[in-house]
Parts: sequence; structure tokens; C-alpha cells
Amino acid sequence: MSDPTAAALAYWAAAEARDWSAFSALLHDDVVYELPQTRERISGRTRYLQFNVEYPGDWHLTVDRVVGAGRQAATWCHFTADGEPAEAVTFFELDEAGLVTSITEFWPAAYEPPAGRAHLMQRS
Amino acid sequence: MSDPTAAALAYWAAAEARDWSAFSALLHDDVVYELPQTRERISGRTRYLQFNVEYPGDWHLTVDRVVGAGRQAATWCHFTADGEPAEAVTFFELDEAGLVTSITEFWPAAYEPPAGRAHLMQRS
Repeated sequence: MSDPTAAALAYWAAAEARDWSAFSALLHDDVVYELPQTRERISGRTRYLQFNVEYPGDWHLTVDRVVGAGRQAATWCHFTADGEPAEAVTFFELDEAGLVTSITEFWPAAYEPPAGRAHLMQRS
Repeated sequence: MSDPTAAALAYWAAAEARDWSAFSALLHDDVVYELPQTRERISGRTRYLQFNVEYPGDWHLTVDRVVGAGRQAATWCHFTADGEPAEAVTFFELDEAGLVTSITEFWPAAYEPPAGRAHLMQRS
């Protein structure tokens, strides 16, 4: 598979389906998963699969946005985990065969807006 | 301009340069800027320009990652604001003329990793 958008969508479809065989088949042996917010990193397909299989809670996702070109893709997903909503933004890098070599993920949490800008903002 | 990657890079270059004329020229009159984490929204180029011009602090940015295709782009930028580091992830949508119609931005903050996964992780 050489379409990075299709690869990213297949990755999330396999995760949501808990189809770990399909999920694994998308990943390079030496895939690296990074979480800049916690400075955590997982190296290798085996460990990264284990991380996903072991991930606690009843989580589900839908893909809100996907953009891909060349050997890169980015997605924005809505998650629920035990009913609690969360957002995930993920950057993928692929090798020439279309296998995912790098996944960098952010989990941006809600926060209160700073003072001084309400005159420009609507808030839902 | 019809290349969404180039549009996103021009947007960030203009912001870093405080070249508000160039910045403004990239935006549709009815551009919408959304911050899902705070549920804030700014509608219109004039207000969005004012938001950027008024934004406090001595902020600077470098683009770490950009991916674009069709009428979409996504970027990951490193910011410093008064010396403090921050990350921003931004999704852009463009119209057929290449003007930015929608900007959705996340500011993911650092957090401590949950217990139970240290056996799979390296941490820097």
C-alpha cells in the first residue's frame, strides 16, 4: 500500500475492530511510537502491538480528519474511553513499501481559555 | 496558490515574521479559527488578524512537520513563548483558490504517563 491516507485509515479501522493481525501488517518491524507530551517512546512492532492490545478500558474511535501525501499522513480522531471523550492527533511516516515506520501522537486535553481574548471569541 | 503544503508553510513564515499583510493575504474573508480544547472560535479574517496581532508574549515558532494534499494540510510546530516551549498541531482547510477557510488548532500540554505501561516504554 503506497497511499498514506489509505494506510492511516486502515490503521484506525484495524484498531477500532481490534483486528490485530491487520493492524500489525501495516507496521514496519522497527516502528517507533512517540508521545511528546509524556516523552514516552515504544520501539518495535511487537512491543507496540502489546501496548495496543493491553490498553485498558472500552475505547472506541472515529476519524474526523485525515490528510496524507508522499510518505506522510496526519489524522485527528475522536475517542471515547469508558464513555469519556478524548481527541488524538497523530502523525504517521511510511517507508517506500507503505509500511508505517513512525507514529507521533498527541492527546490534547481541554483547558480553560486565558483571560484577555473573550472580545474576539465565541465559545460553545 | 493551490499547494496546501506551501500555503501552510507560508502561513507560519508570515506569522513568525509578523508580516501581517502576507498572513492576511493567505486567509479567506470568512476564515474560521477553532480551538477544540477551549471550545473557542473566531470568525472572520479581521478578528483573526487582531487575535494574532494582539497575542501576548515574545513567541517564536519552527515547523517540525507539514503534510498537505487536495484542500487540506496539517502542521506540527514547536513554539517558544517568553522562553517557554509549547507544541501546536494545526489542521488547515483551503478553498479552490487556495485561501485558508478553516484553521483548527490544538495545544497539547505535557502530562505524566499513567501507571501500568512503563514495561513497554522508554522515557527521555
